[in-house]
Parts: sequence; C-alpha cells; structure tokens
Amino acid sequence: VKVSELGEIGLINLIAKIIGSSRSEQPAWQNLVIGIGDDTAAWRPGKNLQLATTDSLLQDVHFTMEYTAWADLGWKAMAVNLSDIAAMGGVPRYALVAAALPVFTEVDDVTKMYHGMLELTRKHGVAIIGGDTDSAPMIIINVSLIGEASGAQVLTRSAASPGDKIAVTGQLGTAAAGYRMLSEKLNFNPEITKKLKAAFFRPQPRLPEGQLMVKEGVKTAIDISDGLITDLNHICHASKVSARINAAAVPVASEVKTAFGSQALELAMSGGEDYELLFTAPAEIVEQVRMKAAVPVTVIGEITSGMPGVTVLDEKGGPMYFGRGGWEHFRA
Amino acid sequence: VKVSELGEIGLINLIAKIIGSSRSEQPAWQNLVIGIGDDTAAWRPGKNLQLATTDSLLQDVHFTMEYTAWADLGWKAMAVNLSDIAAMGGVPRYALVAAALPVFTEVDDVTKMYHGMLELTRKHGVAIIGGDTDSAPMIIINVSLIGEASGAQVLTRSAASPGDKIAVTGQLGTAAAGYRMLSEKLNFNPEITKKLKAAFFRPQPRLPEGQLMVKEGVKTAIDISDGLITDLNHICHASKVSARINAAAVPVASEVKTAFGSQALELAMSGGEDYELLFTAPAEIVEQVRMKAAVPVTVIGEITSGMPGVTVLDEKGGPMYFGRGGWEHFRA
Repeated sequence: VKVSELGEIGLINLIAKIIGSSRSEQPAWQNLVIGIGDDTAAWRPGKNLQLATTDSLLQDVHFTMEYTAWADLGWKAMAVNLSDIAAMGGVPRYALVAAALPVFTEVDDVTKMYHGMLELTRKHGVAIIGGDTDSAPMIIINVSLIGEASGAQVLTRSAASPGDKIAVTGQLGTAAAGYRMLSEKLNFNPEITKKLKAAFFRPQPRLPEGQLMVKEGVKTAIDISDGLITDLNHICHASKVSARINAAAVPVASEVKTAFGSQALELAMSGGEDYELLFTAPAEIVEQVRMKAAVPVTVIGEITSGMPGVTVLDEKGGPMYFGRGGWEHFRA
Repeated sequence: VKVSELGEIGLINLIAKIIGSSRSEQPAWQNLVIGIGDDTAAWRPGKNLQLATTDSLLQDVHFTMEYTAWADLGWKAMAVNLSDIAAMGGVPRYALVAAALPVFTEVDDVTKMYHGMLELTRKHGVAIIGGDTDSAPMIIINVSLIGEASGAQVLTRSAASPGDKIAVTGQLGTAAAGYRMLSEKLNFNPEITKKLKAAFFRPQPRLPEGQLMVKEGVKTAIDISDGLITDLNHICHASKVSARINAAAVPVASEVKTAFGSQALELAMSGGEDYELLFTAPAEIVEQVRMKAAVPVTVIGEITSGMPGVTVLDEKGGPMYFGRGGWEHFRA
C-alpha cells in the first residue's frame, strides 16, 4: 500500500497508532496531558532546566536509500538528537517528528521507520508527542527533542580549563569506516561488516554516560558528530582554550585498523558520526567516570592555555596534520 | 555572497548574530540559560503546562520561490507554528529552526528570511534558541515551537458539546484567494492585491485571542489551516459531535467577494491557510469573547449531537455541498 492510497489522515492515524503502542509507565508518558492529534502537545514539566534540540536527516544529503533500511533511518534520526541531549548530561523526554515522504512511499516502510525510532525511544523513556507529515520529492526526517537536566548542572562546550584531561567514551572511526565500506562497496569479513554497519546505522546515544558525567562533576562535553578534531575545536573556541591530543592514545576500533590499515587513524580523527561523548575534566574526575561507566573511557590528551585550536602529536611528540577537519555542509 | 562561500560555521555564526540581536527583556529570553551554540538549548520552565508543536515549509510543496519573498517565507514558517500555540490558548516561548538550503542560496536572502521570522518572534516574546542548517537541493524550513498554557486550561479539539455556538475570528477566504491570485497570475486593483498577498504571506497568529478564549472559559478551538469545513470536521471527530454551519453567516472577506464573486464562499469554506481561530462555546461565552477581542468574532453555526460531520446550510435551510474538503498531502 502506498501512502497516497492511505491519504494524509490515514497516515497520521497509522503513525499515532504505532506510537501509541509504545505508551508506558515511564515519566515522559505519565506527565503527558495531550499527545498526537491536537494543535500542540502538552505536558507538565519537571523541576530541572529544560533542554531542546533539533536535527534533520535529508535523503541524498545525510543518507541514501541505496543501502539504508527504513528502520535504520528511523533509529538514526532519533539517535542523533538523543546524542545532543546526552552531550548535555540530560534526560530526554519528548520528541516531535516531522516526516516528509514521496507519495509512492510504501506504508510498510513508514511503519518500519517509526518502529526504528521506537526501539530507541522505549529504551530511553522518550514519548513521541506530535509531528508533521508532508509529501515531498525526497525523504526528510526532522526530529526535535525536549528533555531536562539530570541534576543541577549541564555539560556545556564552554567550561573547559587548562589542565583538564580530554577523554572520549567508546571507540572511534567505526561509523566513518562503515560509511566508506557502504559507499565504496568494500568487502570485509562478516564480523567486521556487521560491526561497521551497526556503528554507521545504529549509533548508541551515550545518555547514561552523560548523566554519569554530571554526577561526577564533569562540566564540559560535546558529542562527536562532525569528527573528533572538529568537535574538540568547537570546545576550544567556546571555552577559549587550546587542546593537545596524543594520537597514539586515541581509541581506534580494531575493526577499523584491520579494514583500513594506515587510514584508520584519520577515520577516527576526522570521520565523524561516532556519536561518542568527548569531555574534559580534572584527571581525578575523568578517572571516576572511567571506573563507573559501562563503556570504555579513554584519556586522549589535555586542555592547555593558548589560542583556540587543536594540536595532534605523534608518538615522538611531533605535530600531525589531518587533511579534512570533519564534515561540513555548504561546500560548493 | 553564496552560503557555500560562507561555509557552515559562517552561516551558523551569521544566524546566531541575527537572532542574538532580537534578545530582549521578554520572559523567554530572561529564562533562557543556554541558547544557540551548544548541543541543546536550556531554559527554566514556568509553572503551567508546557506545549510543543512542529511544522515544515517545503519548497514546491508549500511555497514556490517564483513569487515568495524570503522575508515572507521566514514569517510564514514561524506564523504557522505560532498559530498552533494560539489554537491551544497558549503563550509561545522558544523556537528551534532547522533550515535546509541550496548551496547557491544568497547569504543576503538567508538574512532576510531570519529577519522575517524575527518580526513575529519579537512581537510575541519568542526566543529562537537553536536549530540545524543543512545543504539540500530545495529550501526546507522546519520550525518547532515550545510554549506554555496561559492559565489552568488549554483549548483542545475534543471538548465541543451539543448546544455550543461555533465561531471564528477575523475573515475567511483571503489566504486562499491570495494563493489563487498569485498562482494563476490574476490582476486585481492595488488595494485588493495588497490585502490578499498579506493574508497569504503574512498570516497573523491569533495569540491574544486564544489567550482571551481561555480566560473567558472557552474549551474548544482549532486554527484554520486546512480549511473551515475540514478543520471543523477535526473538532467533530475529536469531540464526537456534529456541526451545522449557516453559510450566510460565514464572514467572507469583501475583497474575496469582489475578486472571486460566486467562488468566494467556497474559498472561505475550504480554501484554508487563513490561520484564524475556529472555536465552540456556550453562546454567552462566545459573546464575551466577541466583545473583548481586538478582531471581529462571528458566530457561524452550532454543535449538535449526532454522527461526527459538518453540514452547511444555505439561507433557506437546504444543505450545500463543497467539492473538496480542504488541503491534504499524499494525494497521488
């Protein structure tokens, strides 16, 4: 069945039904007063700072349907927004989803996409409370996410101090390696293929880790979407500090090393889309986070005083240069 | 200067500067803790119910650049979202703006678009606190708007009762007439041309009127985006009631009558995009709203018991039929 056969009301009803099936005892649903179907959604807020973010995925800009499954598209559209809440150390609560779809889209595919979103929203206690549906010549999924601080503090980009250690959660380079594998149709063994695909299509927003950081006294974090160097550079400019990374300390995933050899470090440094958290704090606080986190936490360098910018050092202490500083739009 | 020459960071900085210039003493700005430039925005909520809505404008779906000015595009993208908050009787507070733009877009045009938004946000005390920028083959503007209830109640679609009068703010048909004029390149006198263009490009969200309705005890409202009949039908289905409209009572704008003659009533009934408020309440409450509102309020019919649906009666009490029930996406 095509969405054109279902019509707009039919499509909205279908989406409301899919999302309604995820209603639960989690606080976001319990505090919701009006969900999908009125002019706006309405809820009772908590007592902490409220947070909001928005991100869009556009067909042939951020993804291609040549190798993207609909469920993965839903997951990723939600994940990139959850990752921004994670990078504030917040708790996600409510999502608005605006979906623009070609008229010949299969209703079954729309269903799969929303189920992909729900896999993540269920896990993190998020209620989808509204949205918008449009016909369009391409697929465009916009998610806006509302959350709240998990405590008295949030993790900003602007609180890094000279002397802070720089650390990252998880491993880097897998998402960019996955993109290279898919777009260049490279063949690797099944284990590597599975790992790289999962990293690219199903990033895990580091929500528990962001909340742990707030609890342990971390003040500065960003999620790695544009690439390690570019995102660290954002922290440097916002905090008016300099940063030094020891290349040998960067946790490059072993699958990326196996598959891409000498290019692995560059994929980890500037590939982006890993959606791991990059944070800075005094050494003892980083160590507390490292000990308590469910994912690996690795110290990769330190914040210094000086002009905002990132220096990468090789094992001998010499500077290393990486061609492209990360993903950006609007390059002609 | 093209956005491709400015680059993504340059574009974000420009947008942040434009929006920062609108910072004011209004509560939305005063309660804002983190605005544009971090992973999410953060603010301290008020004590009332929080509201959220999202709407996108897509090039060649909702508008064409053949006759749309960039400032008008910005205004309308913001207005359609403000109108949803108005239809809840709420107070708008925070906006997120996701803008997808072709790389050859002039920076000057982007500036004009944001200034178009700011004309409205300034007036209504809204702070733009974040967003997203992407390159795309077409222009897509998504706005998500967060607000709060103006009092203990909100205006829903589901509270209409048999015996309620049905009323509308303002006049109807001008936006649809404006669209017809522009898309069919029709020529009218300068006064009519100006009025119809303004109605189509610069709808006025009825925020004070929605808030007045809450204060006077109205419980049911919707904004007219899809068309009077279609939107009243939404109320009927949500409230499980029937509705009867007296066609002769519908406030069709005189400019629409002059320009479109016998088609004027249909434009008012099913044209849509007027963004006036359609509400139902006991006669004495409607009368209070009518007396206190700054815009005309007209009773056009009443809610009855029976199967959900809308009946339109002519002056002799006979049923009238209108071909198309309003705008919908996903018609192939």
